[in-house]
Amino acid sequence: MSQAMHRVVFEPDGRTLDVPDGQILLEAARAAGIHLETPCGGKGTCGGCRVVIPDAPPEPSEACRSVLTGEEIARNMRLACQVRVTSALRVLVPEETRVGDQQILTDGAMFDVPLKPNVRKTAVHLPEPSVADQRSDADRLLDALAEKGLADLTIDVKAIRDLPKRLRTLDFHPAVVVIGDEVVHLDRPTTTDACYGIAFDVGTTTLVGYLVDLVTGDVKAVASRTNPQTAYGDDVVARIEFAGRETSGARTLQTLVVDALNEMVLEVCRRGHIRPSVVYEATMVGNTTMNHLLLRLPTDAIGRAPFVAASASAHSVSARALGLKIHQRGRLYTAPLVAGFVGADTIGVILATGMHEGDVLRLTIDVGTNGEIVLGTRERILACSTAAGPAFEGARIRYGMRAADGAIDRVDIEGEEVVLHTIGDAPAIGLCGTGLIDAVAALLAAGVIEKTGLMRSAADLGRAPGLASRIVGADGERGFLLAAKERTGAGHPILLTQKDVREVQLAKGAIAAGIGTLLEEFGAVLEEVEEVLLAGAFGNYIQPDRAQAIGLIPPVPLQKVRFVGNAAGAGAKMLLMNRNMRHVAEDVARGVEHVELSQRPDFQTRFAEAMFFPQGA
Amino acid sequence: MSQAMHRVVFEPDGRTLDVPDGQILLEAARAAGIHLETPCGGKGTCGGCRVVIPDAPPEPSEACRSVLTGEEIARNMRLACQVRVTSALRVLVPEETRVGDQQILTDGAMFDVPLKPNVRKTAVHLPEPSVADQRSDADRLLDALAEKGLADLTIDVKAIRDLPKRLRTLDFHPAVVVIGDEVVHLDRPTTTDACYGIAFDVGTTTLVGYLVDLVTGDVKAVASRTNPQTAYGDDVVARIEFAGRETSGARTLQTLVVDALNEMVLEVCRRGHIRPSVVYEATMVGNTTMNHLLLRLPTDAIGRAPFVAASASAHSVSARALGLKIHQRGRLYTAPLVAGFVGADTIGVILATGMHEGDVLRLTIDVGTNGEIVLGTRERILACSTAAGPAFEGARIRYGMRAADGAIDRVDIEGEEVVLHTIGDAPAIGLCGTGLIDAVAALLAAGVIEKTGLMRSAADLGRAPGLASRIVGADGERGFLLAAKERTGAGHPILLTQKDVREVQLAKGAIAAGIGTLLEEFGAVLEEVEEVLLAGAFGNYIQPDRAQAIGLIPPVPLQKVRFVGNAAGAGAKMLLMNRNMRHVAEDVARGVEHVELSQRPDFQTRFAEAMFFPQGA
Repeated sequence: MSQAMHRVVFEPDGRTLDVPDGQILLEAARAAGIHLETPCGGKGTCGGCRVVIPDAPPEPSEACRSVLTGEEIARNMRLACQVRVTSALRVLVPEETRVGDQQILTDGAMFDVPLKPNVRKTAVHLPEPSVADQRSDADRLLDALAEKGLADLTIDVKAIRDLPKRLRTLDFHPAVVVIGDEVVHLDRPTTTDACYGIAFDVGTTTLVGYLVDLVTGDVKAVASRTNPQTAYGDDVVARIEFAGRETSGARTLQTLVVDALNEMVLEVCRRGHIRPSVVYEATMVGNTTMNHLLLRLPTDAIGRAPFVAASASAHSVSARALGLKIHQRGRLYTAPLVAGFVGADTIGVILATGMHEGDVLRLTIDVGTNGEIVLGTRERILACSTAAGPAFEGARIRYGMRAADGAIDRVDIEGEEVVLHTIGDAPAIGLCGTGLIDAVAALLAAGVIEKTGLMRSAADLGRAPGLASRIVGADGERGFLLAAKERTGAGHPILLTQKDVREVQLAKGAIAAGIGTLLEEFGAVLEEVEEVLLAGAFGNYIQPDRAQAIGLIPPVPLQKVRFVGNAAGAGAKMLLMNRNMRHVAEDVARGVEHVELSQRPDFQTRFAEAMFFPQGA
Repeated sequence: MSQAMHRVVFEPDGRTLDVPDGQILLEAARAAGIHLETPCGGKGTCGGCRVVIPDAPPEPSEACRSVLTGEEIARNMRLACQVRVTSALRVLVPEETRVGDQQILTDGAMFDVPLKPNVRKTAVHLPEPSVADQRSDADRLLDALAEKGLADLTIDVKAIRDLPKRLRTLDFHPAVVVIGDEVVHLDRPTTTDACYGIAFDVGTTTLVGYLVDLVTGDVKAVASRTNPQTAYGDDVVARIEFAGRETSGARTLQTLVVDALNEMVLEVCRRGHIRPSVVYEATMVGNTTMNHLLLRLPTDAIGRAPFVAASASAHSVSARALGLKIHQRGRLYTAPLVAGFVGADTIGVILATGMHEGDVLRLTIDVGTNGEIVLGTRERILACSTAAGPAFEGARIRYGMRAADGAIDRVDIEGEEVVLHTIGDAPAIGLCGTGLIDAVAALLAAGVIEKTGLMRSAADLGRAPGLASRIVGADGERGFLLAAKERTGAGHPILLTQKDVREVQLAKGAIAAGIGTLLEEFGAVLEEVEEVLLAGAFGNYIQPDRAQAIGLIPPVPLQKVRFVGNAAGAGAKMLLMNRNMRHVAEDVARGVEHVELSQRPDFQTRFAEAMFFPQGA
């Protein structure tokens, strides 16, 4: 009799694995391509591999009890190294438990900006009050700062409430934290080096946070997450609908994203060996919907024609008022938006790629859940947003996943043999964005997929029996078998389905149609574009020829194509590191011309045409 | 057998009266000099005469039940016309129940300032959004305001949260309320005339509020109150001690004064027939302690040498955040302070008297619980604060009271006869500030009080038997009988006691010593002073010769003396009506030289000398 197997689902990835009875959960996770922190080697002493088992968790072991708090145990947290799988399980893997298994691109091309942060932390010596010098505490402090060259600062009533006590505790020798032109906190005089900021790229599907040392300019740590709002819809339209439908919908979405940002704050602070209370400012780029949901601005009018934002301005708000747990008087700077769905992420891309300063015509494609396209020079910039959908981020694809260990990221067909590569060389679990592009491109080249996107039947592929044998049925639709069940770490085969191909067609078609519309509006032809920049969380891992083969990149000579990675996030970092960039961002935001695609009949025609795969394929 | 009498105490005045059994409380109040609103003539239908009977209130009558709410009845509110006095009673008389029985000076000398309020309310027509005009709601609004000449405005995230819905409800045709350079509210387009502000003079003992129509500049209504903080101490030192001693002391004092300010808001709005929600801004002058307690700034360091404020700046803060119930996004502007105890009330006095613009040397004495003295010209202004005490405001005087009906406000001794005048010609109840000055001056002139302040014995006054017969013992100290019990409305005789005379000596001595110190610091002599301005809540009612007789006004020709009334309050109005005055106030506050008296040995000497009454008396 064969050994009993139990299905284990790892959330939030949704990776599924059939595990032999009695296997240690830590090993099962490893088999699923999820690598957990285990500095102690699985002995139950370090507490690194903590996971949550929401339904019927096993009794906590001795080791669990000694390492975890009672509150954690009550929240069904356990150590994966202490749990034996004896039944089907659903396991939540907290992001902080994972070893850097993310290939989300956290570095973006970035022009060097001089370090000139909006936050400054300076130690000053104040003369003590006397009858001959009865200046108020606030004036005494501001005068001393002015003498150090920090003139025209203000201090608000809330900060003054603590000031007298704080000044006297510190013997009139504080390290003063100034954000913008406002004094927000007095710290011990030895802490002037402890001055940090965090730059957030808040995407529809993916969140990235960069911890930046504002004294040295170094990026100390990076964290990323799936945006937990995805539970309420894959794209911004679904989020807006949810926010409008439920009375507390907008609040739910805001809380979800802030909770995730707070987890990232804790994660980068732990990695950077600092306390969140020395993170004084955050910057954020995000599309119009992400911006409004985070700021608790209403989104209804964004969701329907003529797609109007409540505010397109930059804002500097109290981080705490939004729930963001950095320093209690810390600020959040949200970069300005363009119009419609084109938001601050696009501003970030423009800043990071330097498009606003360039003489040559550049085309930037930011591949995310929305595909934002920017075309222009320093003279004129046009931008539009297309509903590319989250296919390249692993969503809406049958075996799609994020770029993590076990994700198929390369697909080649050599003869009739399918050659796969996975991230971390782990057993295949699913297909990430680059793997998806590769798979479609390879199958197009092999003739398995037609130019129209139709996947041929096994009969039509009779001349290539090795490929024909891989055409299988999957829940009533046709699929191409990339990896048989026994060759995966997922406990199921991995297919590319007809519907997956259609999703790719929709995504790349929207982007191609957007590019065509912008070129026409600009009065240029593709040949005049001197550089095509590909931005996006997974940008650097794409093979450009494959992307061009499926029509994601327009037909330009490949030497014109450059990958700029997570340019939006790089823009957020620039805004954090140099406060003058905020004026630049505001100028750029005012200058960019927004092209609203959704209401144009010519866009619909272009979109329909662009759904086909390129001729050369 | 004589009729049973019951003692009734009316709060917050503390007026006490013995009332025959069965008397209607409304009549008893009248007999005590407290006039209640009775438009219905005491029939129990108008609800005007509502009072609170905190301890064992009588069952509410039919009329009470029909006029008062259940919640009011539960708070022990009753109609005075419906209550028969059948036992000793303590009665709280809400200020709004009183008929204008206050003689607190609510008008101050005021230079005409052009009406240029910090609050503006303007109707605008916005073009509706379209695909061709996708400006955000905030930009659309700010652009329309800029076209009307209101450029460079901002709108914060909180206000933007309501903006999309509000704009659409109002068909893109709002009346926009702008405070400073910030858009705070959108009202219906027909309401541009409904734009009000309130100016507060927050004194240690007395609060005054002026409702100002910011479209016409008219003062629509005035209200005043005893500062309820007096329950925790007569002067600022006692308040600071209380705020520091109790953990919630500062909060208690803040809540008390804000509650009183809110009552005044309701009162002036009722009288002005407007809703508090169209009061968009308040301005406030007050001494350093009143300013800090209201703003919830710590007061400890003010209370001990070297007497340092937490902040001396002007502040514009959210009214609601402090508990002040004007428009929910309304602002409170607190005028800047000088230093030490010399606060924004002195800035108000300077603005209202125009001292900062004058060529001639002026001396201003603001008689309040602290006596603030200002000396100078446009070139140089000196200021100091003296602990005059609240004697002239009716406190610490045995039969002292505020200037209300029944207060003795004039005392003459003709031959050996004492001639009294009371406010409202009502039966005498007590002695207000002007009556106190008069009484001391008259008794000095008659030889009943010596230059040292000693009240002579009956034996020493043998040559004036009519006066000698009025020297009586009162709880172990000597007193002079002003009105016998049967001639008063108070149920007790009214005396001026030896201790009362000492209080007057302390108050006027502190002021005289302050004047002497300022003159010396300025390098001037009294003869060079061209004008002596007497400010204060009761200023206009003082007889200058009497004030000079007791030494409250220095010995200058009387034609040099001018009464300017509640100049501090007038300054608060100027700051409300003309926003440019705020810059002037800030310049003045920076320029005034503060002379700290408390630590000067020469002040102590002067003070001791100035305790005597003038030679001429």
